[in-house]
Amino acid sequence: AETKKIAVIAGDGIGPEVVAEAEKVLQKVGEVFGYSFETEHALFGGIAIDEKGTPLPAETLEVCKRADAVLLGAVGGPKWDNNPKELRPETGLLGIRKELGLFSNLRPAVVFDCLKDASTLKPEVLEGTDLMVVRELTGGIYFGEKFRRQTEHGEEAVDTCAYNVTEVERIARQAFDIAMKRRKKLASVDKANVLETSRLWRETVIRVSADYPEVELEHVLVDNCAMQLLRRPSSFDVIVTENMFGDILSDEAAMLTGSIGMLASASMGEGSYGLYEPVHGSAPDIAGQGLANPIATILSTALMLRLTFGYGEAADAIERAVAEVLDAGHRTSDIAAGRGDALSTTQMGEQILNAI
Amino acid sequence: AETKKIAVIAGDGIGPEVVAEAEKVLQKVGEVFGYSFETEHALFGGIAIDEKGTPLPAETLEVCKRADAVLLGAVGGPKWDNNPKELRPETGLLGIRKELGLFSNLRPAVVFDCLKDASTLKPEVLEGTDLMVVRELTGGIYFGEKFRRQTEHGEEAVDTCAYNVTEVERIARQAFDIAMKRRKKLASVDKANVLETSRLWRETVIRVSADYPEVELEHVLVDNCAMQLLRRPSSFDVIVTENMFGDILSDEAAMLTGSIGMLASASMGEGSYGLYEPVHGSAPDIAGQGLANPIATILSTALMLRLTFGYGEAADAIERAVAEVLDAGHRTSDIAAGRGDALSTTQMGEQILNAI
Ligand SMILES: CC(C)[C@H](C(=O)O)[C@@H](O)C(=O)O
Ligand SMILES: CC(C)[C@H](C(=O)O)[C@@H](O)C(=O)O
Repeated sequence: AETKKIAVIAGDGIGPEVVAEAEKVLQKVGEVFGYSFETEHALFGGIAIDEKGTPLPAETLEVCKRADAVLLGAVGGPKWDNNPKELRPETGLLGIRKELGLFSNLRPAVVFDCLKDASTLKPEVLEGTDLMVVRELTGGIYFGEKFRRQTEHGEEAVDTCAYNVTEVERIARQAFDIAMKRRKKLASVDKANVLETSRLWRETVIRVSADYPEVELEHVLVDNCAMQLLRRPSSFDVIVTENMFGDILSDEAAMLTGSIGMLASASMGEGSYGLYEPVHGSAPDIAGQGLANPIATILSTALMLRLTFGYGEAADAIERAVAEVLDAGHRTSDIAAGRGDALSTTQMGEQILNAI
Repeated sequence: AETKKIAVIAGDGIGPEVVAEAEKVLQKVGEVFGYSFETEHALFGGIAIDEKGTPLPAETLEVCKRADAVLLGAVGGPKWDNNPKELRPETGLLGIRKELGLFSNLRPAVVFDCLKDASTLKPEVLEGTDLMVVRELTGGIYFGEKFRRQTEHGEEAVDTCAYNVTEVERIARQAFDIAMKRRKKLASVDKANVLETSRLWRETVIRVSADYPEVELEHVLVDNCAMQLLRRPSSFDVIVTENMFGDILSDEAAMLTGSIGMLASASMGEGSYGLYEPVHGSAPDIAGQGLANPIATILSTALMLRLTFGYGEAADAIERAVAEVLDAGHRTSDIAAGRGDALSTTQMGEQILNAI
């Protein structure tokens, strides 16, 4: 088979540890299914600030651009939190999204059986929760003009939120396409009773919906959505929303599953190009101790195989292996609920490798 | 005692029913404590659209301006949902906030004992939750310039989010003042890693904090706050944030208490001027049937007595009466959990009146 190129960005904190296990999984999957992967490593985030003086070195961008997909661990940590804006890991994140055209962030929020008690929601409310937040990732207030100016009321700061029809259309189409492969329900979230961008958003989603007559579409105001996620999480299938609302709601949705440490995510560009990363952060407090749980990163790799390379069978195999290992009772310390026999990062990786 | 003037806006749906009970409570409190209240009614929201052709008639604004405080029921309903912007109840809401200078929205989120099972959160997580969201209400993206323009990517919509130092300072001071009267903890919520307005917000809050050395201040990113509210709701005391974030987080916080139908709110202007209303909506589906629960509106009246008039004793008496009536097992149907002996709106009002 054709060799697929993957840019690997380990990043900061536990990033390198979890990415190492995901790379082993990639290799194993290649052997088992006869696929060929070529990986190229690059610096990004805090470590890039330290070694190259910028969170997103030009070279890293080049490595990503010549690859077919990007695997990312995690970035950031207290060490860089008080840096000026250009020297902060987040600035690198926003930059890589924009530069690679990753306009769509997919965040599946599912409940892992072994973690359902970890949720702060009642089990009967959580039952059956399996939703996907589709967040617009390169527009809105994140990327609009920002500035300060003097006014008679003291200094004023301004952020601009803009969306054009093309931007809304492509994310809407993607959300409808995803809904078609799931339970065919789409909740479009906006604040159309206040924002002009939301009114454009809603009009455009309604227009696109004509091409997807099978999908049941509802419009939910963002404040109401924050409530409904708590009240009836299992009633949502796909949620599509703009950048800032998606940031807030996808975190709320992930947290309520109780499984946030196990969730994968994909940020997609045009075509099948994508960047894959765990939802969890860089967890600097446990970095370098072999305590990190590699499952979210391994599941992000499965997403890559499915969404970018179309290797559905291999993706299934990884997901099945993870389920099997968890069913057999294997746990890293974050999900061991105090049991004394937790596996290390590499031990968990090995169990999954063996199960593939 | 001096006569206090109260503008009464019954509004739509169940608004008139719940406001009627709150007015009786006001009168009773006047008799018991020797206070004198003068009420003046005005049209607002859907009913004002129907009768006057605008959600916020000039006359209504006049009535509010010559009063010391405003009592509001609820506005809106499906009848007006598809109206053009100028003819929608929400437009009236935004207008009245701006015109009356109601820059601060206080939303206490507490758990009523009799409703703690109504929450979708586990009781042990909810235990001790008693927080107050202080939302900036007349600035930010709600009131910034909005427009559309043509671009090469199709029509584009723009919203502008602006905050000046004066606006942030006054809401920050109010939040610190409130925290001083509570558990002395303040969480300031922003998105300072992305937004310029949030950076100004954070700098200003930090500057103001110098005047409140006793208050423990934390800065929480909005996405993280949406998660922490689920994970550790009882650890929050006062949360202060900008308009859009406050809209989302105050609804999330209210919903997680399980007591959303019982929560009061206050929107404060300069000095002690305030508008008081229940957190719940106009519930058009049950309007006119005597099913509505008047408690949130009655508790909003208690807030008015305390915050605008300084009648703390009378406010305490109302809150005590509500607690007593609930402890005695009286319920309206929304909180009766299927029991067959639910009281009507007026019966519940009467019980509370008798308990004062
Ligand atoms: C770090 C931050 C800029 C980023 C965002 O807000 O997009 C993060 O919260 C996320 O959700 O990926
Ligand atoms: C109706 C709407 C404009 C309003 C808001 O967003 O402020 C409402 O959601 C609220 O919270 O009072």
